[in-house]
Amino acid sequence: MRVITTIQDMQTEIIKLKSQSKSIGFVPTMGFLHEGHLTLLKRAREENDVVVLSIFVNPLQFGPTEDFSTYPRDFERDRSLAECEGVDFLFYPSVEEMYPHSSSVRVIVQERTEVLCGKSRPGHFDGVATVLTKLFNIVLPTRAYFGKKDAQQVAVVDGLITDFHFPIQLIPVDIVREEDGLAKSSRNVNLLPDERRQAAKLYKSLAAAKEIIEAGERNPRTIKNLISNMITSETDGQLDYAEIYSYPQLEALDNLEGTCIIAIAVKFSKVRLIDNIILEVSKEIGGVK
Amino acid sequence: MRVITTIQDMQTEIIKLKSQSKSIGFVPTMGFLHEGHLTLLKRAREENDVVVLSIFVNPLQFGPTEDFSTYPRDFERDRSLAECEGVDFLFYPSVEEMYPHSSSVRVIVQERTEVLCGKSRPGHFDGVATVLTKLFNIVLPTRAYFGKKDAQQVAVVDGLITDFHFPIQLIPVDIVREEDGLAKSSRNVNLLPDERRQAAKLYKSLAAAKEIIEAGERNPRTIKNLISNMITSETDGQLDYAEIYSYPQLEALDNLEGTCIIAIAVKFSKVRLIDNIILEVSKEIGGVK
Repeated sequence: MRVITTIQDMQTEIIKLKSQSKSIGFVPTMGFLHEGHLTLLKRAREENDVVVLSIFVNPLQFGPTEDFSTYPRDFERDRSLAECEGVDFLFYPSVEEMYPHSSSVRVIVQERTEVLCGKSRPGHFDGVATVLTKLFNIVLPTRAYFGKKDAQQVAVVDGLITDFHFPIQLIPVDIVREEDGLAKSSRNVNLLPDERRQAAKLYKSLAAAKEIIEAGERNPRTIKNLISNMITSETDGQLDYAEIYSYPQLEALDNLEGTCIIAIAVKFSKVRLIDNIILEVSKEIGGVK
Repeated sequence: MRVITTIQDMQTEIIKLKSQSKSIGFVPTMGFLHEGHLTLLKRAREENDVVVLSIFVNPLQFGPTEDFSTYPRDFERDRSLAECEGVDFLFYPSVEEMYPHSSSVRVIVQERTEVLCGKSRPGHFDGVATVLTKLFNIVLPTRAYFGKKDAQQVAVVDGLITDFHFPIQLIPVDIVREEDGLAKSSRNVNLLPDERRQAAKLYKSLAAAKEIIEAGERNPRTIKNLISNMITSETDGQLDYAEIYSYPQLEALDNLEGTCIIAIAVKFSKVRLIDNIILEVSKEIGGVK
């Protein structure tokens, strides 16, 4: 595995590999890798000739009150994990390398951002789309891998790739869960022991929602109430949102139909967790995938 | 020459050619080709295996009061000219093909736009940068050709390519001039006979500016006054602006040094003309290229 820190070295290397018709699998991350990231790397390893992992904590996607400087970093551990997963290139640029001066251009995301987590993070997805536009042009991937846990990010990246015509295949990868259903996340270690047990209810509430949809329920309000009641009565957490939208457009629905996302965010004492399920809903009872 | 109207066909064709290590020269235009465009095409033909010309009148770069619907179009003439210049692919998408729905992303240009023509065309360069981001991803050029007549556009494209790291070489091509120095433009036909004679003064005023800079003048105000006096006293045109900036940053200068642009815009009765020269100025007298 080669660690590359400059844009020019990375792009030159990739252009050489592409001229040899190699396929490039790309996993962009902010580092501090967990099992979710490793799943993306395994998938990229299976499907491509060359695997590129980027680690870059992107200041542009943090708000002024957010935790850019304290965001967890552990490069040596990440490097070992990447090596074990068979990564070929670890792209690890500094902030100065990625943003050497005020940039003359940036990307604005004008849809899919005013709901879910985007609602409380103005400018966050502009920062994500801008850094990805840069990274996509540097790494020139054949396929780019993103976890479905950040379903809104996947929706935004889908819009970015589609509307700007990047010749890249977006590969959304399923959420990896603990045995009790809790979605894996670096943040889970910040749950108190009681909260850790309760946190399984996030996924259980989504599963319960899926069940009543399979039984014929199509009214978003009824489904959201079910989730809200479960979280409120069965955990000490505070429900931040329980929402249902079309996916990936993230538009409000009067009745569930087509591809839908049910997404929740719950605040525990020291950590806020998110989870979601994406369903194909048809008009018939039981028509759910 | 093949005319291609869909994004998918164009991109598929290009990816095939690039896998054969062909270099791609790209000339993006809004059609109604004139000698300036043909110069770009000739240069692209000399330097690349494959030449792609795009013709797309981009609604995104026209303001609400501007002339999108009346912008001159003559596809059959353009097609013949392109064929004569040895173009391999003429990419000619419809507005519906390029903008099938409201786009979820767009590019904002936050530098180099508040001066010269950009000042009076808010949003114009956002539209240019957005459509070029799309076209660059569709055509995946090795080299992209732009005329220096639209020097501010070249500066914006330079920022776009540099800051988003497009693996594209920007080739700015010198202005083509009539025998008397007038920069060639489709709009010149709208000059009255007297105005056509006077219009040569645009370039003459720039040449006079260059002469006094060679003689040691470094004060932008003095140079702008010289130009302004020549245009006012020797033509019936109305000076819209005579400006001097660093290039391509387009920042104000206290004293001329480094790469500078001297740019003017003059309104005649039925047409507004622009022209510019770009100079390398050193501290020594006569240090001008």
